[in-house]
Order: sequence, then structure tokens, then C-alpha cells
Amino acid sequence: MAEPSPSPNAEAGGLLAEVLAGRPRGVARMMSLAESAGTAHRPVLADVHRHAGRAHVVGLTGVPGSGKSTLVRSLTQRFRESGSTVGIVAVDPSSPFSGGAILGDRIRMSELSGDPGVFIRSMATRGALGGLARATLDVVDVLDAAGFDVVLIETVGVGQDEVDIVQAAHTVVVVSAPGLGDEVQAIKAGVLEIADVHAVSKCDRPEAEKTVIDLKSMLTLGGVRRDTGWTVPVVATSAQNRSGIDDLVTAIGDHRRHLIASGGMAVRQREILRMRVLKVAEDLVRERLVGERAADLQALVERAVAGEVDPYGAATDLLAGIAKD
Amino acid sequence: MAEPSPSPNAEAGGLLAEVLAGRPRGVARMMSLAESAGTAHRPVLADVHRHAGRAHVVGLTGVPGSGKSTLVRSLTQRFRESGSTVGIVAVDPSSPFSGGAILGDRIRMSELSGDPGVFIRSMATRGALGGLARATLDVVDVLDAAGFDVVLIETVGVGQDEVDIVQAAHTVVVVSAPGLGDEVQAIKAGVLEIADVHAVSKCDRPEAEKTVIDLKSMLTLGGVRRDTGWTVPVVATSAQNRSGIDDLVTAIGDHRRHLIASGGMAVRQREILRMRVLKVAEDLVRERLVGERAADLQALVERAVAGEVDPYGAATDLLAGIAKD
Repeated sequence: MAEPSPSPNAEAGGLLAEVLAGRPRGVARMMSLAESAGTAHRPVLADVHRHAGRAHVVGLTGVPGSGKSTLVRSLTQRFRESGSTVGIVAVDPSSPFSGGAILGDRIRMSELSGDPGVFIRSMATRGALGGLARATLDVVDVLDAAGFDVVLIETVGVGQDEVDIVQAAHTVVVVSAPGLGDEVQAIKAGVLEIADVHAVSKCDRPEAEKTVIDLKSMLTLGGVRRDTGWTVPVVATSAQNRSGIDDLVTAIGDHRRHLIASGGMAVRQREILRMRVLKVAEDLVRERLVGERAADLQALVERAVAGEVDPYGAATDLLAGIAKD
Repeated sequence: MAEPSPSPNAEAGGLLAEVLAGRPRGVARMMSLAESAGTAHRPVLADVHRHAGRAHVVGLTGVPGSGKSTLVRSLTQRFRESGSTVGIVAVDPSSPFSGGAILGDRIRMSELSGDPGVFIRSMATRGALGGLARATLDVVDVLDAAGFDVVLIETVGVGQDEVDIVQAAHTVVVVSAPGLGDEVQAIKAGVLEIADVHAVSKCDRPEAEKTVIDLKSMLTLGGVRRDTGWTVPVVATSAQNRSGIDDLVTAIGDHRRHLIASGGMAVRQREILRMRVLKVAEDLVRERLVGERAADLQALVERAVAGEVDPYGAATDLLAGIAKD
């Protein structure tokens, strides 16, 4: 069908070419498509996905105050010194109303932002009802397809979606800091088990040794990842003393080589794709329910308010409606 | 169909009666059904939902270290002194592998646990793929149906599911503490806007006054909830000085009365039900995909691994399969 203006497909094709050429404006625009709701941009994001798969994706997680932003910055500088380009995706909790990402990390990262070998993106959460994991992994694909050698995903180690996201990395680094309060440590315990590498930050502090010893003794009880036979290392780092970053880069590289040599990389990629397919399916269902099925949803909510149907019955009715489409 | 042993329905009916009578064993067993995956327990949970709706549900959220567990305990003691019974649901981040809830809060709460007018439940997350919000709100229904006057939901103020959950309360209390680090405060900013009431903890500390002033000046810019015309108060509390808890109980009661008088309660209940219906629908889809459709999912993941299909295409295919059921 002839059209007077460039067709959406031609535009999308041009955008894809810009991404594959690593042009920052194209990368940013493609990320905005990935962040937007709806299925309109599916074909071009599928194209992006087809061109992804070369980057090593490293997830860094830790509680607020663990110093992971500082570690992301140090790691990025070290990767750059060795000639690798680095994409960074910062998953910040943000307002469900404003949808705006928090500026803190962007400001701290600014010393990196003049370097064309570094691309930083802060993710906003998608509003009150999901989509964050789906969008984040699409953004990772964009950086991967754009040719960045390493993609770092930084997430807070709390929250189900955030844990899902960091587990979609090839190498998961859990960041611990000495001297955090009880409540914070308890929360940290929830993500210790997903670590491929432990990094202890702020090791210029005297309490750091205890944190390292605690982690190591915990790992002697179960520090070998069942899936690949990898022995999880504990790396002591200090941004202040500029120490341990080489060790951390080495540990990440060792883990990548181990994954490839052991066949664990294929296992992990399968798990990541399974999670992504499920997240996308959930997104699609929600989009249909609040989109083309919005009137049905509203009618069922009114019936639920009136006590005529319970949330399960309403949800089942809605899904039956989708099935009839 | 005659059966030699009691039918599941008769058993479920007996369990429902136990919940409605407020028997702790029955309440705990019904909560386990709510926490379990699958649709088998849907009918009895629908019955529970029909008997809920009397309790005032209060969500408390704040970053790690904000002192919200201490505040939950103080609030509970004060509600008990005034003769109200209290159900508590603590939503703790926990290991996606072990599925176990973290013990920290349970231990701190133990001084309350000898009181039959208090029921405490720690929620485990549902594994790597969702269901936490759905399960938590079913557990709130159980406490409501069991006759608890007040239900307190405690969540960490980080993570999408956790924010969704706390927004399913009638009154949302956001807990802030003086003197937390930059990174922590930045995260807190994301949940400030969902507050019906602000509580500042640890007001025995000198820095607390600044926190109170900061919150109040922020609120002069936008401290009236558009939906109901409610003016959001800032309440200074101190567990150490045992001060401010009465004010907090008053603020929560005032908000409830305002919601009822303004018609805002009906609006909020509608929003809560809409969110619940969507969460249940997502859960049902995921359960079908990893359950009866597991072979299809696996086949599509293999095709995705081989690069023959992208995650979107795979998800769309899966949903088309469901529609044919």
C-alpha cells in the first residue's frame, strides 16, 4: 500500500539501523519504544532481539546504602580502561504516579556520561501495574544490539520484579556493605542465594573484614551453584582505596568463561528466555484487559463492588472474554 | 457423587466456619491455602472474600531502617488498649529459591504473639514469578473475615509489587526516619506521593525536626489528595519516648472517617478491586502457562533459544493456545 509519508515500518527500519550502528540518539529512541506500553512496537523490538546476544550481561544488586552505584561506576571505568564499551541500566524504584525515574544515580554517573563508550539509562517503573521487567530486558537487548560489550543492570535487591530482573543477567553480583542495620541485613539475606559473585563494598572500613568472613563461612555451607558447579567467590572492594575492582572484573570474566565452558551459559539463556516469555505474556494479557477489554473490566469491577462476583470469578470471566477474541 | 471420606467442599466449609469464628488454627490454614498457587482453593477463598469488608485496612511502608516494624508494634499495642483486635501481614522480601519468609520481624513481634487479639503473618514471596500481591490480599481478606477490626499491612517501600500491595489499603501510612543516607532517601521519594498519612519515626533524635519540616514543606506544594480532598498530616513519633502513637491512631481514624463521609471509600474500594482482578487474571494466565500449557511453553522457549521466535512472538503464540482451550 503506497503512502505519502514514510511508512512506520520504514521508520522502524531506519531506527533499527541507527541502533545497530550504535548511534546514541537511535539507541535512546529505541529504548523509549521499549519503555512504552502496548504492542505497536513489537516488530522492531523483535528485530532488536534478533541482533542481541553478544554482550555479557552483569546484574548488580544490593540493598539501599550497599554502595552498588559507586561499584557500577568503578567497574565501568575499569572496563573502559581495558577497551570494553559499557551499557548501564539503572532500575530505580520511582513514583507510581509520576512515572519519573529518580535522578540520584544519573547525577552520580555524570562523570561517565561524556564518554561515547558508555550509555546510561535510568528506568522508570511502569506505573502501578507491572511491565518493568519486560521493559528492562528489552532495554538490555537494545544496548546489546547496539554493540556494547558489557551491559550492567543495577537493581535494588528488594522487590519481586527487581529480583527477577537481576536474575536475567548472565552473571549476578550481590553487593554487601559492612555496618548496615539489622533490618537491612535481613532483607539482604533474601538475595544472597542468587549471587554468582559476592562483592563487599567499603572495605576500607574496619567492620568489612567481618562481612567478608561471614559471607565466606555462609558459602562453605552452600557456595557451589548447583546448576554449573561454579564456586562463588567473595571479592573485597573499596572505592575510596580504589582496591578490589580488578579482582571483581576478573571474577566476572572467570564466571563468564566458566558458564561457556561448562555449558551453563545455554542453561541460563534458556531460563532467561523462559522468564521473558512469561513476563511478556502477562504484559499482553494486562494490556488487553485495560485496553480493548476495558469496558468488560469496568463492568466486572462494578459487579465485584456490588458483591455479585469475587475477584477470582471476575478474572476468570475476563480471560474467557479474551479467549473468544 | 458419594465419597467415603468428607468431600473437599465439606472440608472447605468447615474451614470457612473456623475462620468466621476467628479460630487461629483455621485462620492459619486458610492463609496457607491463600498462599498456595493454583486455582483449587478458589471457591473457598471466594467465600472468604464475601465475608470480608468490615476491617479497616492500613498499609505501612517505608525503606529498610525507617523503623516501620517498631511502629507496627506500637500501633498494635495502642489499638489493643482501645479494645480493637489487630491482624498483621508482614510482606518481607525473601529468597526466590527457599521461598521462606525472613524471621527478623517475626522475632521482634513476638511480644505481641501471646495475645489472642493479635494475629501476625509473614508472607513469603511466591518464587521468581509473581503472585505475591494476589496472595497478600487474600490473606488480608482472611483476617478481615475472621473479625479483626484493623488489618495492618507492612511492606518495604521498594519494589513494584510491594507498592501495589500497600496501595490496596484504605489508609496508607508512609514511614520516614531522620538521618538515613542519600540513596535511601532517594528511594523513599518514590512512595511519598501515595501517603494518606506521613509518620516520622525516631523523633527523639535531633535531626527529626528537619525531616518533619521537609515533609511539611513538600506537602504545602501538593499535600491534598485529589481524589478525596483529604489534607495529608505529618505525625512525629518516637518509640523510645513512647510519643506520637496516639496522634498516629487519631490520624488513621480521621482518614477513615473522611473517606466514608466524602464518598472516597467507595472510590478506593473500586480501585482496590480493579487492581485485584487484574492481579488474579495475571496469576491465572501464568498458572495455565506453567501448568497445563507447560509443554507448549517449553517448546516455544526452545524455539526462542534457537532464534526462530522472539519472546513476543512466543508469548503471543502461547496466549493464542490458551484462547483455544
